[in-house]
Amino acid sequence: MPALKGKAVVAQSGGPTAVINASAAGVIQTCLANQDVFTGVYGSLNGILGTLQEELFDLAVEDPIQIDRLKRSPSSALGSCRHKLKDLEADRADYERILEVFKAHDVRYFFYIGGNDSMDTAAKLGRLAGETDYEMIAMGVPKTIDNDLACTDHCPGYGSVAKYSATSVMESGRDTSALYTHDTCTVHEVMGRNAGWIAASTGLVRRSEQDAPHIILLPEVPFVIEKFVADVQRSLTDYKQCFITCGEGVKTPDGQYLADAGGQFVKDSFGHTQLGGAGEAVRAIVESHVGVKARTNLPGTAQRVAMHFASKTDADEAYMAGQAAVTAAMEGVSGKMVTLVRNDDAGPYACTTGLADLEDVANGEKMLPPEFINESGTGVTEAFIQYARPLIQGAAPLDISDDGLPLYACLDRTLVAKLTPAWR
Amino acid sequence: MPALKGKAVVAQSGGPTAVINASAAGVIQTCLANQDVFTGVYGSLNGILGTLQEELFDLAVEDPIQIDRLKRSPSSALGSCRHKLKDLEADRADYERILEVFKAHDVRYFFYIGGNDSMDTAAKLGRLAGETDYEMIAMGVPKTIDNDLACTDHCPGYGSVAKYSATSVMESGRDTSALYTHDTCTVHEVMGRNAGWIAASTGLVRRSEQDAPHIILLPEVPFVIEKFVADVQRSLTDYKQCFITCGEGVKTPDGQYLADAGGQFVKDSFGHTQLGGAGEAVRAIVESHVGVKARTNLPGTAQRVAMHFASKTDADEAYMAGQAAVTAAMEGVSGKMVTLVRNDDAGPYACTTGLADLEDVANGEKMLPPEFINESGTGVTEAFIQYARPLIQGAAPLDISDDGLPLYACLDRTLVAKLTPAWR
Repeated sequence: MPALKGKAVVAQSGGPTAVINASAAGVIQTCLANQDVFTGVYGSLNGILGTLQEELFDLAVEDPIQIDRLKRSPSSALGSCRHKLKDLEADRADYERILEVFKAHDVRYFFYIGGNDSMDTAAKLGRLAGETDYEMIAMGVPKTIDNDLACTDHCPGYGSVAKYSATSVMESGRDTSALYTHDTCTVHEVMGRNAGWIAASTGLVRRSEQDAPHIILLPEVPFVIEKFVADVQRSLTDYKQCFITCGEGVKTPDGQYLADAGGQFVKDSFGHTQLGGAGEAVRAIVESHVGVKARTNLPGTAQRVAMHFASKTDADEAYMAGQAAVTAAMEGVSGKMVTLVRNDDAGPYACTTGLADLEDVANGEKMLPPEFINESGTGVTEAFIQYARPLIQGAAPLDISDDGLPLYACLDRTLVAKLTPAWR
Repeated sequence: MPALKGKAVVAQSGGPTAVINASAAGVIQTCLANQDVFTGVYGSLNGILGTLQEELFDLAVEDPIQIDRLKRSPSSALGSCRHKLKDLEADRADYERILEVFKAHDVRYFFYIGGNDSMDTAAKLGRLAGETDYEMIAMGVPKTIDNDLACTDHCPGYGSVAKYSATSVMESGRDTSALYTHDTCTVHEVMGRNAGWIAASTGLVRRSEQDAPHIILLPEVPFVIEKFVADVQRSLTDYKQCFITCGEGVKTPDGQYLADAGGQFVKDSFGHTQLGGAGEAVRAIVESHVGVKARTNLPGTAQRVAMHFASKTDADEAYMAGQAAVTAAMEGVSGKMVTLVRNDDAGPYACTTGLADLEDVANGEKMLPPEFINESGTGVTEAFIQYARPLIQGAAPLDISDDGLPLYACLDRTLVAKLTPAWR
């Protein structure tokens, strides 16, 4: 059966990563190489918002050098959003609006690069298209630094944030080590709202017992203040210093985020509760309950887009995932997300792609499994190291400009003419 | 006149940098290459504290591979401290103790790598040695990410933190740009307590008007909340987003640090004042006075030791400064700090070394000059770009281990036998 002919729309959603543009490049370049199938390739400005507002731009007229440079450019060059569509029932008008825009432009392929919510949107859109007999293919490409998507061995974006976070902790740990007579403790807060994959990745740098991080606080392990204080004190006894990686989503035993609940442990001299995130709460707890000076690092958004030290493995796999989505779509596959599949034999690491139902991904969330967390709950196991180490390998290439700084892709994003009435 | 014969002690002080070990390597390797002059080369553990406590270790017995790797290793491998010695009168016992230890080990050369305070210590030590007829040479090697030392064009450590901070802001700025429909504003706090050199360096990435950072808050420019709010609003109008670099030492017009005084502008719903640093205060001001969502990045200590993206120019100059200190000392020079001297002709950037009196450095502090700050006070001038750009050039080499992460030097630091009674 010949492939369905029509335009493709590609969109990016949620928090940017170092390699989500590499996935976009994989989609775009594969579409452009198959113009017998794809009569056009449009970007949707700022994720699904761009489709709702009919803000689409033609990727075929962009400079091919810039399209290729997407492989080496962080953040979401198509624009992103956090616009979550609800159930087909609750938000039916929005889903119908998207189909209206797609029909107007003869869009027959939708590639959504994102996390759970994006897979949910793509799934529902595919379902509605089927119900209304509009022939259309909806495919998902995984993206999240949090590495918490179901059905895939790991997620594009994770290897790079892991490599960067691990290295920052190694470097910052040496800083603490050098200045322990003054600043004895450092709390380094990393992202990962519910899953501890990023926090765990900083365990990769612990080549010996005295190396940072001495304590990793994971969202999967409830924060018990008495145990934590004892752990810090033990680290001070053993190493004269304590470096703590703190996942932003660390929770108290009653399930509250420490970022919100930290104030119950620490009052300042005016009786105020502590503000700020989990790392700041942990820092305040160290100073008040252990009595040593502590500092906070909060790399924030800089961590997830640190292309300057990204993993080549991650960037290559991100591109491959984008490519695979288009290849599968051309074979008529729809309603699936591309997955990353690790060879499970004893040989060196290798990774291919597979496919999973969008619904299965949308409804799952993969926490750090117990076998990756050490007995004390404050570090990782050798099994985790074996899992994560291959993902951070290699230096992703970087274009350096004449000014000595990285050169990242810039797309023109000139919008195509609107063919439908304004939305809302 | 033949050079004074005896041992050398090298020490590192204050906040670590990406390249302070490169300076140490310059000192150590040059001393080891001149064993007719230097009968030994000792490291002082944790800065001057190690000399006070007679905790010295023999650098000649360290693995030469590790010594060479110092050129490519961040933080202070000899250990650092923030132990400030006061006036010769007030702390005379401490200065005499240092000389006691030096005499016991026949130390005739003291190389102190650090900032103002270290130059002050080295100067006073040299003075006391002269007064007590102990023939000894005291030399300073500049080190500070803050770039605020007097008498030198720039300071080793600055080029690397500038390159890293600029790149992080470029990347994080692209993140804000992609997600502006949700997280409209980002506040990125950088170090530099009194001087805005690091904050200014993030201006290097602004290749066009819409690029981050849209506002740079400098300690040299008083923070006037009405102007700031108007500046943010203008950025939102012009670019739909606002990326702010905030120097940690930004001050209110009455000279208070914003980190301490931020609470006067923002009360939470319980009437509490805001805690946290300058960046957090600015974030809260944006949310309360402008009404858009803002995020904070606080790279903290990770920024000053980011060897993984250090400037080759900086690393090379740091080594050269260490080397030059030893060369001058062998010629009998004492009481001087090595300076970096930029060619002032119109040709391509070149840098040699000079010498300045330790006292002049100790008593000076170099702020960002007015001609480097733009008219609105929220950005840098082309003159600054011309000044700073050469300092960030080139990729400092990095040893990568089999595990895919950087390999940084580890010294054994086995202490030599003590020859004097315990201190205090």
